[in-house]
This record gives sequence, structure tokens and C-alpha cells, in this order.
Amino acid sequence: MRIKYTLYVIGALLCSVGLTMSFPLLFSLYYGDAGILPLLFSMAATLAAGGGLVLLFNERSKTLLNHREGMAIVALGWLGAGIAGALPFWFGGFAVFSDALFESISGFTTTGSTIFTDIEALPRGILMWRSLTHWLGGMGIIVLSLAILPFLGVGGMQLYKAEVPGPVPDKLKPRIKDTAMALWKVYLLFSVLQVVLLLFGGMDLFDSICHTFGTMATGGFSTKNASVGHYESAYIQTVIIIFMFIAGVNFSLHFKLLLGEPKAFLKDEEFRFYAAVVVVCTLIVTFAVYGSNYGGFGDSLRHAAFQVVSICTTTGFATADYEQWAPVTMAVLLFLTFLGGCAGSTGGGIKCMRVLLLLKQAYHEVFRLIHPRSVSHVKMGRHIVRAEVLSGVLGFFVLYIGLFILSSVLIAAMGVDVLTSFSATAACIGNIGPGLGTVGPAENFAHLPVAAKWVLTLCMLLGRLEIYTVFILFVPEFWRK
Amino acid sequence: MRIKYTLYVIGALLCSVGLTMSFPLLFSLYYGDAGILPLLFSMAATLAAGGGLVLLFNERSKTLLNHREGMAIVALGWLGAGIAGALPFWFGGFAVFSDALFESISGFTTTGSTIFTDIEALPRGILMWRSLTHWLGGMGIIVLSLAILPFLGVGGMQLYKAEVPGPVPDKLKPRIKDTAMALWKVYLLFSVLQVVLLLFGGMDLFDSICHTFGTMATGGFSTKNASVGHYESAYIQTVIIIFMFIAGVNFSLHFKLLLGEPKAFLKDEEFRFYAAVVVVCTLIVTFAVYGSNYGGFGDSLRHAAFQVVSICTTTGFATADYEQWAPVTMAVLLFLTFLGGCAGSTGGGIKCMRVLLLLKQAYHEVFRLIHPRSVSHVKMGRHIVRAEVLSGVLGFFVLYIGLFILSSVLIAAMGVDVLTSFSATAACIGNIGPGLGTVGPAENFAHLPVAAKWVLTLCMLLGRLEIYTVFILFVPEFWRK
Repeated sequence: MRIKYTLYVIGALLCSVGLTMSFPLLFSLYYGDAGILPLLFSMAATLAAGGGLVLLFNERSKTLLNHREGMAIVALGWLGAGIAGALPFWFGGFAVFSDALFESISGFTTTGSTIFTDIEALPRGILMWRSLTHWLGGMGIIVLSLAILPFLGVGGMQLYKAEVPGPVPDKLKPRIKDTAMALWKVYLLFSVLQVVLLLFGGMDLFDSICHTFGTMATGGFSTKNASVGHYESAYIQTVIIIFMFIAGVNFSLHFKLLLGEPKAFLKDEEFRFYAAVVVVCTLIVTFAVYGSNYGGFGDSLRHAAFQVVSICTTTGFATADYEQWAPVTMAVLLFLTFLGGCAGSTGGGIKCMRVLLLLKQAYHEVFRLIHPRSVSHVKMGRHIVRAEVLSGVLGFFVLYIGLFILSSVLIAAMGVDVLTSFSATAACIGNIGPGLGTVGPAENFAHLPVAAKWVLTLCMLLGRLEIYTVFILFVPEFWRK
Repeated sequence: MRIKYTLYVIGALLCSVGLTMSFPLLFSLYYGDAGILPLLFSMAATLAAGGGLVLLFNERSKTLLNHREGMAIVALGWLGAGIAGALPFWFGGFAVFSDALFESISGFTTTGSTIFTDIEALPRGILMWRSLTHWLGGMGIIVLSLAILPFLGVGGMQLYKAEVPGPVPDKLKPRIKDTAMALWKVYLLFSVLQVVLLLFGGMDLFDSICHTFGTMATGGFSTKNASVGHYESAYIQTVIIIFMFIAGVNFSLHFKLLLGEPKAFLKDEEFRFYAAVVVVCTLIVTFAVYGSNYGGFGDSLRHAAFQVVSICTTTGFATADYEQWAPVTMAVLLFLTFLGGCAGSTGGGIKCMRVLLLLKQAYHEVFRLIHPRSVSHVKMGRHIVRAEVLSGVLGFFVLYIGLFILSSVLIAAMGVDVLTSFSATAACIGNIGPGLGTVGPAENFAHLPVAAKWVLTLCMLLGRLEIYTVFILFVPEFWRK
């Protein structure tokens, strides 16, 4: 564990974050709003901290990153970016520090839970920064899940070792760079496409960019108090449904599409599972709201699809207050909270791949009981799933549920009602955004006790970084030579 | 799959169930209540059905039971006993058939969910039969979990192959008989002891027997509308706390105690985990109710311990309406709903053994990430847990959660509110009894839609028989030669 080298890399990362603050600053300058000074000061502070680390620990590394360093950089990097990202909210007096940090971590983890009660009152530059944290976090998570975690063997992600684009790997570092560049091109391409399509729908440039950042990162911060429900245009809502769905798909499939392999989607078992879940849940919800909440079938289908895709991909945009819908829709949405998108997407949750593997393992056990003497294996596509992948998935699942229980009980112990405690925790670990109860789509997280916000901030980080990556930082052995 | 032989065994089982109806009949005769005729007719019908099957399919079996026959007998046997057990409620006009079956399956699966709104209005003979179904179900489950499932390798129960009392096995049939006799002696002994201790507390013989049946089977049917809360005596409540705790322990440990090995308890990792959970949760709940719900610390501790032990062991007796308590107690109790007692006890739920193994596996994954090159294994006590046990546990866990999701969504789709749908399902799969919402400890299951009752009846059976045993009956391949 080369702590100096780790800090050097984090310093470089902070410098990048600082530089990106110039983008929202441009908007603040253009609109001449109250975001100019907070963004300038934050940028200066972040660049100073990052630059300081780089200068202090400027070590030319001879050997490549090892497992532990990789994990420490990921966890501390996200935390560092989160703290830097909180500065504009805090410096501008828009939120106290704990709230600012909650909002920023919610952004970088692409969660989308907010502590702002009146979003539309914020300066545009600040809103742009808030949405940009999503987009940056989304960039980070694509690389993390497709280029780093498969090689660290975290939570069964080693399944994707052979799946990722780029040259055949033998070393971690060049691999990360090439994979990252390939995937970011896809991410950027889709983002540009969505901005253009939203502009066509009559949304202005500022809102189009912000909503695109929230969509492609499956984040969910909107610039409107009523979220996407603010836009009554069926066209805009449909564009966002489609791009949320796209953002919930493994980005290596999109990459293959651009390479001219559209069949990759159909061959991919996880994608088929994800698409099937979205379709089935949309139909259930459509059936539940048709006639009772919406008169027309088209409206019912659109609102059902929006909410299902938004929760399943862990985006968290809303066009309706689904707490007013029939119980079955709440039950369906609550379970989608745990499912999440595909691995290798910007979505959170347990991930379709893991749930699919767990279901296959359960079926395999039934098969084994009927044929006790036969030798059989769990397969994904045409490949046998190795025992270590299954045990990684199992371990992840248990930690996820364990964290959910612990955090829910802690928040309930602060006097928050059970439904809110449970759904706020589920929404934060799964990086969705809104929950049920008093943190539903028509409300926000502002009223929760400060301690609950800290717990939820940690949950967002743990959930986003596949739990293990943060968890092992607390194991003393991790830091030993 | 010898279907005739299977039916013969089930016939014999029905005859036994019919004969046990003479016990409540004695009480009906003594009190001269309205249970006499329903019990007599039910007994005649059950004996006729059982006797008919025995005579029709009287095959001397030359070979022993195989895996599939074992599982078919367990699943169909429980269902048959459940149907027979419903007759007294139905014949007497105390409930419509679907409700009567719900009540009887709730009894035989030691769940304790009830559809009766005024329990105290029922004839004593009927109440005794209701409680006796618990006790018989408890006898069945001890043998199932310690003598049958370990040899069928269901849901990781093969872990207990070496643990069970009786002679070293080579054949399934003699093994079942010897093990059953040994464990039933323990069960009977504790039951007699509890009846005597309750009599000392001033409870009458009838109520003492009924409450003992509900306690030792971790069932939860009471003869009083207010459950054990009817008895304000701290002595009576404490006796029931202690015996619920005992009933939630692996009965092979009790057997070892009688053989003069009291250290077996301390050596058993599952018991230590179970005891620790009960103590920690009791302290949390005590802290939450002290001062706000109860003035004295002793009262707080007793009511906290009662509710925690009752839910954790999946008994379902109540001395308080815990829905009126602080949110944290609801959160704790809701999670205990999933945990359940020890494997090899009469308790339901996922079982402490499985949860402990899952936690160990998760920790093992963290360890493996820090030491990627080391070879390590998950251990239980001093033994390495084989991969097939872990994968059995994993499969069980996934089916359990999957069943919970499916059933909750189905019940919510009938228009039942989300909290009730979820907690009713959790309470039935876990064989606890009361849930939250409109099926809380102060209410009952009578008002649910009929279809929801059928779903929950199936859930009780699936949960009690470790899911697999019932589940594979629906796989067509199971019935092929």
C-alpha cells in the first residue's frame, strides 16, 4: 500500500474536478447569477488542494497499481470529489455543510436525492454544477465497473473480464485508459444526441443539458421542482424514457453496437432480463393506473413506463407522484429499487446480472434436488459461471441487505417512521433518489435529522462503489504492508 | 416415484391425525360445548379417507423411500393434515372452507395467523384442536428438519447430517424412526414442564395446555383475544418467554443436554448467534419503550423481551400492540421476521444457521479481496463448510426472497396496502403469525380478500417446508420416472 502514490493520484483527480467547475461558471457568467463567486472560490480551493497533493507526493511510479491501491483510490477519490463538489453549495450559502455534502455525494454517486426544497430558486450556474456532478459520476462509474472492478474481482464483476472493449489486457493501467476512452466516447455521443433531441422538443439549452446529465448518469437531479413532470410534452417525456433505458444498459454493448455488432444486445442474457423486467413491470403498472389515475391508455402507458424505467435504472426522475397510485405499483417500484440496471451501466442497485445469477443458482439447486447424481453448472450465455463469481455475487448481496438493515434501523432509531427509514435507505444504497413516505417523489430529504443525512450519505457512497470498495477501508488489515 | 406407496404413507398419516382429534373431543365432552359433533364428524371423515388410502394402496415396500418420495410425502402429508384439520372449523360452521383451511394450515405450519375475530367465542374443544394442530405441526417439523432434510440435502440442511442424535445412519427409514423418538421425548418433556409451570401461575389446565402447544411449536394461537397480553402476571409472561426461547433452539442440543452435555450449547455457533441476536434486540427495544411506553425498567424489559423472542422464534404471541411503539422497534421486529429461530427448532424464518453462514461468506469475500492469493474457507464451528452447503443456503435465500416479492406484489395487486401486503407475506412465509398494518398483533387476517388468503396459505406451506420441498412438486420432471 503506497499511501503517497495513492494521494498523488487523488490530487490529480481533484485538479480535474476543479477544472470542470469552469463549465457551470460559464453559465453563471452568461446569466450573471449568484453562482459566480461560489464557483470561483470552490474552483480555487479544489485546484489548490489537488495541486498541493500532486506537488507534495509527486512520485514517479515504477510499478503499476495493485489491488489495494486501486480500491483506496476509487473510494477516497469519490469522497474527495464529493467534498470538492459540496463547496459551491456551501460557499454560496445555499446549504449548511452536511446538506451540501449530501447533495454533492448524491450527485457524484448519481443518486439524485436532494435536500433543496426550492430548486428553481437556485442560480443557474449552481444548478448546472449540481447536474454536472451526476455526469462526472456517471463517467467514473462506467470505467469503475467495466475497467477496474472486473480486475479487482469485486462482487462477481470478474464475470466481465472478457467482455470489456479495448485491447486484450495484461496490465491494469493501460487497460483502464483505453477502455475509459472507448466508453466515454459512447457516453458523450449519447449525451449530445439527447441534448439535441430535447432541444427539438422545445426545452431550452440549459435545461436540456442538465436533464441529459441527469439521464445519462441515471442520476435524477432536475432543474424543476416538479422534476420531469414540469414538462407536459409527451415527446420530451418519451425521449427521456428512451435515454434512461439506454443509460441502464451495459455500455460495452453500446460500444459493440458502434462497432457494428447490434446482435450483441440480443445475445446478452443480462440485457434480455433487464428488458423483460422493464416491459413486464410497465404493463403491470399501466394496468393499475389505467382508468383510475389516467383516462387514456397512451397516458397510462407513458407515465407507467416513465416511473418504471426511472426507478429500475435508478435515475429517480418522476412525472407523477406514484405514492398516490394503487398499492401494487408501489410494491413493484419498491422491488425495482433493489434490482437496478445492468452491470456496466451508470445505474445502481444490486444490478440485473447479479439478480439473474442468483435466480439461476436457485433454479440450479431445484434441478440438483431432482437429479442428485447429475453434474451441472450455472451458465451465463454460453459460459460456465465459476464458483468464485457466484460467491462474489452472494457476498455482495448479503452485504447489500445487511447494510440496508443496519441503516434502516439506525434511521428508525432517530424517530423517522418505518416506511421512510426503509425507503430512504433503499433509495440511497441503490442510488435511485426519491423513496416513499416523507421522502417520496413529491418531497425531498431536507427534513430528515442531520445524523440520518450522514448515514444516508455513507449509504450512497457504499452503494455506488459496490460496498466492498468502501467497506475494506475500515478493515485495519487493509492498511498494513 | 412410486405414487401408490406415497399415497399409502399419506393414508397412514391421515389416520394418525384423525386419532389425535379424540384429544380435543375429550375437552368438548367435558365442557359439553358445541365442538362435539364437528369433531366427531371430522374424525370419522379423516379416518375414512386415511383408512381408504391405506386399504387401496396397501403395498409392502421392499425398497426404502427415495429422495423424491420423501419430498412428496412431506409436502402432500402437510397439505393432507391441513385439509383434515380444517374440517372441525368448517363442519361446525365457525368458518367458510377457505378460512378454515387458512386456520388449519396456519396451525400445522406453526404460523399462528388467524382469521377468527372473536376467539373467546369459540367452543373449547375447537380451541383445543386449533392449538393441537400447532403441537402436531411442531412434532413434524423437528423430525423434518433434523431427520429428513439433512439427508435430502435441502437448502443447506445437509450441514446437520452429523449433528443429529440417534444411531449412526446408513438407511433413511430406521434413522427417521429413532431420531424422531429421541427428539419427541425432549419435546414432550418440555411441554409437560411448561404446562406445570403455567398451572403454578394460576392459569387453568385448558389454557395452560393450549398456550404450551402454541409456545413449544412456536405457533402463537392463543385462547384469548388479547393473546398472552390477557394475562397480566409477570410470572406467566416470563415462563412463556423462556419456553419460546427454548423452542427456538435446535432440538438436538436439548437432546445432548439430557445426555449430560450442557456444553453443547456454548460450542454451537448457531446457538451463540441466536442468543446474541435476542439479547441485543431486546436491549434496543427496551431502550426504545422505557419511559415512553412503560414507566418501570422491569416492565419495559419484560415486554421488550416478550415481543423480541416471540417474533425471533416466529411464535407470534403478543403482550402489547407493538405498532404503537417507536419506529425503531418496528424496524427491529420486521427484520427478526426474516431471521427466525435455529435450524432444527420448531421456529420458521430463514433460520439463524443460514443467516450466519451468509454473513460468514460475505466476510470471507472481504478477506479474499485483501488477500487475493490466500486459500481460505468458510467454517462453522471447527468444520469447513462445503461448497454444496453454501450453494444450498444461497438457493434457499433467493427462493425465500423471490417468494416474498411475488406474493407481496400479488396481494398488493388485490388492493391491500403495501405495508400490510409486505408484512402479511413476511409473517406467513416466516410462519410468525401477526404482521404490521391491518394484520398487526391487535388485528387478524379475516378482512383480507379471499384470494389473498389462498396466496398466504400457500406461503405458509412453502415457508414451513423449506420452499424446495413444495416447489419441486410443480416441476413436471419431478413426477417422471
